[in-house]
Amino acid sequence: MSGPDVRTLNPTPEQYAYAFGGHAPLLTVMPGTIVELSTEDCFAGNVQGVDDLPSSVCTFPFLNPVTGPIAVEGAEPGDTLAVHFAEIVPARDWAVSSTFPHFGALTTTHNTAMLHPALEERVWRYEIDVAASTCRFQARRSEFSVELPLDPMHGTIGVAPAANEVVMSITPAAHGGNMDTPEMRAGVTAYFGVNVEGGLLSIGDGHARQGEGEVCGTAVEAAMRTVIVLDLIKGHAPVSPRLESDEFLMTTGSARPLEDAFRMSQHDLVGWTASLLRLDELDAYQLVSQTGLAPAGNVVDTNYTMVAKLPKSLLSGTNAYDGVHQRLQVRAADYLRTR
Amino acid sequence: MSGPDVRTLNPTPEQYAYAFGGHAPLLTVMPGTIVELSTEDCFAGNVQGVDDLPSSVCTFPFLNPVTGPIAVEGAEPGDTLAVHFAEIVPARDWAVSSTFPHFGALTTTHNTAMLHPALEERVWRYEIDVAASTCRFQARRSEFSVELPLDPMHGTIGVAPAANEVVMSITPAAHGGNMDTPEMRAGVTAYFGVNVEGGLLSIGDGHARQGEGEVCGTAVEAAMRTVIVLDLIKGHAPVSPRLESDEFLMTTGSARPLEDAFRMSQHDLVGWTASLLRLDELDAYQLVSQTGLAPAGNVVDTNYTMVAKLPKSLLSGTNAYDGVHQRLQVRAADYLRTR
Amino acid sequence: MSGPDVRTLNPTPEQYAYAFGGHAPLLTVMPGTIVELSTEDCFAGNVQGVDDLPSSVCTFPFLNPVTGPIAVEGAEPGDTLAVHFAEIVPARDWAVSSTFPHFGALTTTHNTAMLHPALEERVWRYEIDVAASTCRFQARRSEFSVELPLDPMHGTIGVAPAANEVVMSITPAAHGGNMDTPEMRAGVTAYFGVNVEGGLLSIGDGHARQGEGEVCGTAVEAAMRTVIVLDLIKGHAPVSPRLESDEFLMTTGSARPLEDAFRMSQHDLVGWTASLLRLDELDAYQLVSQTGLAPAGNVVDTNYTMVAKLPKSLLSGTNAYDGVHQRLQVRAADYLRTR
Amino acid sequence: MSGPDVRTLNPTPEQYAYAFGGHAPLLTVMPGTIVELSTEDCFAGNVQGVDDLPSSVCTFPFLNPVTGPIAVEGAEPGDTLAVHFAEIVPARDWAVSSTFPHFGALTTTHNTAMLHPALEERVWRYEIDVAASTCRFQARRSEFSVELPLDPMHGTIGVAPAANEVVMSITPAAHGGNMDTPEMRAGVTAYFGVNVEGGLLSIGDGHARQGEGEVCGTAVEAAMRTVIVLDLIKGHAPVSPRLESDEFLMTTGSARPLEDAFRMSQHDLVGWTASLLRLDELDAYQLVSQTGLAPAGNVVDTNYTMVAKLPKSLLSGTNAYDGVHQRLQVRAADYLRTR
Repeated sequence: MSGPDVRTLNPTPEQYAYAFGGHAPLLTVMPGTIVELSTEDCFAGNVQGVDDLPSSVCTFPFLNPVTGPIAVEGAEPGDTLAVHFAEIVPARDWAVSSTFPHFGALTTTHNTAMLHPALEERVWRYEIDVAASTCRFQARRSEFSVELPLDPMHGTIGVAPAANEVVMSITPAAHGGNMDTPEMRAGVTAYFGVNVEGGLLSIGDGHARQGEGEVCGTAVEAAMRTVIVLDLIKGHAPVSPRLESDEFLMTTGSARPLEDAFRMSQHDLVGWTASLLRLDELDAYQLVSQTGLAPAGNVVDTNYTMVAKLPKSLLSGTNAYDGVHQRLQVRAADYLRTR
Repeated sequence: MSGPDVRTLNPTPEQYAYAFGGHAPLLTVMPGTIVELSTEDCFAGNVQGVDDLPSSVCTFPFLNPVTGPIAVEGAEPGDTLAVHFAEIVPARDWAVSSTFPHFGALTTTHNTAMLHPALEERVWRYEIDVAASTCRFQARRSEFSVELPLDPMHGTIGVAPAANEVVMSITPAAHGGNMDTPEMRAGVTAYFGVNVEGGLLSIGDGHARQGEGEVCGTAVEAAMRTVIVLDLIKGHAPVSPRLESDEFLMTTGSARPLEDAFRMSQHDLVGWTASLLRLDELDAYQLVSQTGLAPAGNVVDTNYTMVAKLPKSLLSGTNAYDGVHQRLQVRAADYLRTR
Repeated sequence: MSGPDVRTLNPTPEQYAYAFGGHAPLLTVMPGTIVELSTEDCFAGNVQGVDDLPSSVCTFPFLNPVTGPIAVEGAEPGDTLAVHFAEIVPARDWAVSSTFPHFGALTTTHNTAMLHPALEERVWRYEIDVAASTCRFQARRSEFSVELPLDPMHGTIGVAPAANEVVMSITPAAHGGNMDTPEMRAGVTAYFGVNVEGGLLSIGDGHARQGEGEVCGTAVEAAMRTVIVLDLIKGHAPVSPRLESDEFLMTTGSARPLEDAFRMSQHDLVGWTASLLRLDELDAYQLVSQTGLAPAGNVVDTNYTMVAKLPKSLLSGTNAYDGVHQRLQVRAADYLRTR
Repeated sequence: MSGPDVRTLNPTPEQYAYAFGGHAPLLTVMPGTIVELSTEDCFAGNVQGVDDLPSSVCTFPFLNPVTGPIAVEGAEPGDTLAVHFAEIVPARDWAVSSTFPHFGALTTTHNTAMLHPALEERVWRYEIDVAASTCRFQARRSEFSVELPLDPMHGTIGVAPAANEVVMSITPAAHGGNMDTPEMRAGVTAYFGVNVEGGLLSIGDGHARQGEGEVCGTAVEAAMRTVIVLDLIKGHAPVSPRLESDEFLMTTGSARPLEDAFRMSQHDLVGWTASLLRLDELDAYQLVSQTGLAPAGNVVDTNYTMVAKLPKSLLSGTNAYDGVHQRLQVRAADYLRTR
């Protein structure tokens, strides 16, 4: 692996951004570059123990810092940025989660406005053992404790939005952002439609693990050391972020109500399937209906995110994006083996 | 297995019901009984080939016939009916699926009313090979064809509703009904809150397989030969149907919008987890948030259904409902081995 | 007004129904009949003072009693029942309202399930002065009090549902039911599609007045003495109830989420406008978009209800349903003047 | 009226903005200033006749130009900007409306994604007669034509958003924006919470008239000549824009699904009522429930908007914001009389 192909990006606290759009690139790379980067947790590292209530130690809007943006040379509106996650490793031996007043799926919120007082704000601290690949949940009101498998992922990843918008990093939408799906894990390639020169990719909000839906509003929030391989596909911008693993093609929809997020993700999966298999749209609709999976990403953020998944075993040897996922995966494996 | 414990229920065409509630039992059994039953497909068997358009060959409201009701001796309001699926096997060597005018997730419907004409009505016929455990999808507008694994399940199962309501069998709600989740497969135990004397269980709408969300509105619709073990738990009626497999505890919510279905399922899973692990409610909320799965059941029916799943590996040896799932599973295995 | 044309219907407590569907007619009338009827309030008269908490004095499902059903001779599926409200007068000199646990727009409910405890259950008693046409709101936690104008209406009115369903009287849907729109007042004609022989009209849930949306879940709930004129239009069944006042054509949609209720009501208003003015559908869409009103009915019941209103001044002399509203209005006025 | 108190703002085409946030003020004024300003229509003036299809003559994101921003001296985060509409007059003798592909309440959209092709794109041109106060609807597929009363209003008005966001002018949210409620007419005072120094007010999207809900996605779109009086209230920032007319206090909620927009608006109206009448929150909930109106603003934009209205007759002489509405109204009347 030759030198210029690997770059590092470790932002200082002042360099973190809290939005997609409106920021000059921290780093500019050529397509094909490997980037080793660090991300802070969604609390900007301010919640370190169970007494650090987020509403006390965090300051709006300095929530959910992202690392970037990273510009990719040659990326133009209408192009597609491919981001392969080679590795996502918790940077510390602890992580935290919490309830947060007026945030979460089972509480009154600013939007689902009710006359109830907020639920109790409570913090959980997880001990992380990277070697054992576990994190430990410790109940706060009893002795119950249990080891959970690590399944590190990034809740937030995206590019600069269209129309010169500047969008808080806590919002998921067509540009990506805070989709909070556990599918965004190592081994996966994510695809984003480019809206501005360079694309301007940012990443943050690492989770040591997360349930589907992120019901209480936060995951096992962790600073991360992450390795990505960045590539550029000319044209072919998807309307919403897509993902690809070894097993699945995945599309996303971020919207409210949740059925619209579902519709968006399914609509895109039907179109993608039709295109890859040269199927009539209704034939693709039928095939997706019988074979697709549809897990929730998040049902707590300013938009909700649904994921639609199609087993790649159906693809009869056809490759999405001309096989870029496989190529980046090989490149990632080579790099990790030799560094 | 002694005689009285095994019953059969093969309705004549006139005996099928199209609603939950409002019907006298076809069969009354003791708790613990095994029932071998047959179900017709959601088209009442009228769609047999690609030229049988449902809107032509089916007559509203004679859609989605159910087998039952089955009364369980001693079941009283507030009790819980446990239904273990020992076996679900397609009864024919073919199954069908279709689009249906104004039905499905990616089309205007009666509720999501728009000015578009209906999408094309189209039927797909699947060849089923029970021995090979496959069903074959054949595209209608191209030569594409692919074998899909069989994963038989029942879209519709439930009890008589509360408040003397009579609810069309196509509606999922607190009594169960047309939840259309692929989790309702063999090996699973489902739990229903009893609203009337006898509970009055009905089952139908077999699917040779189904994607999550049932996007186009129908699955691979198949008549079934199904074996269940029925049991009665005094008290403990869940607010909505629950399921249990060897790996997961599952709760359901059926409502619109989809986020309310999600909330209902998650709320019940948090409560169930708190109860089983003797956790404070917020501790359970946290644990479910980091470990739960949240797949869509259906996003097409009169109510949408979401499923919330908790890995039983977290339960530290505690058993739901005092281990009834395991007991019924053993009983089912014994029966299948010896019949 | 000749004798046979006027009938009375004053149910005994045992005769009240709590559902649409599943009941034999209490009264059968010829088209054109005037019916003087009495209705109980939604609490079945059990909440009489501020200490009568509904959850204590009422018993599920004995909520929201309705008077009826009334069969109309000759009414067949596909026909339209026209119901003109000649008079709606509170039957007592008091009415009540309340919050109710897990019911209302600004509280967690069974569907919008959250971890909050229920809001406080509280009852308000209104003094009613029919002569002055006022009801008096008296705050419970302060001395504040204010006279409000009476604006009597029926929250619940409908016919037997399709498909032999039996639906609790608290649910609004295609058959009508608990739509809870303040537009259902004296001087208005309501139109319902007939699903079963006789139509089987039932009425209840009188409100001395109600705000749009019925935010807290209950209105100023009052027993009523109501005079209606019933007529039959052969054919022309609307998909959802329609209303007509001297000023407006109105359509309704009852569904969740609220935008679907909106879509249903607007879709029907566009179609009705196109038909009456012989407009192309998009031209009608445009005209409705610029001239229509869209108030909430209820945002609390098992389905939400939106109303779409078109000023009749746009109709260039065309009359809906061949002028039945005007005819029934004259007939009502004649009757009230001479009784 | 002394000179420095009246300013004009007539942007050149290049000066129009298409977002809230991200723009330096075009004008800075003292509190109390009257501003005479002009606004372009939502099509940036490019749709002038029925053959000018918006998708052909308009360029995303150059839709919905706004005039401003106007900075108010002394406005700081947490303050409230009061904007009184003294006059809104169509600037031309014509206006236009249209359907737009994938936009509107009764069509598939990007979010409510379906497999239907887009509805026909069609333009209607209205002749405007300011003296007669009418605009003429002319059907496109028939001879039908009708005079409609002018009821000029602004669909879009707001301030710079919080958190340094830059939001397209077509989005309504907490900062205001494209709320598209017909209540934003002359004689009304609107209140906005200030998020940044100066507040940075922008206005656009004049409608010669608009139905509630703006069903087809556009109103009778017109360039406007508008006179506002701007004032500053220290503190008291509302969470969402509020309005006040001579008859009503009004709150708004902009969100999806529509019931959340409803909840937000009602929640704020309950709080406002409680505060003004010194009522306990549940007493205010009750009073609003029985007296409030709840019309739709828009059910087509990126967020939907609901309005909640309370008759000021209930207020027993109490004035909102210390009577600023009345003062600005007098000031506006004085100015209009003497200019």
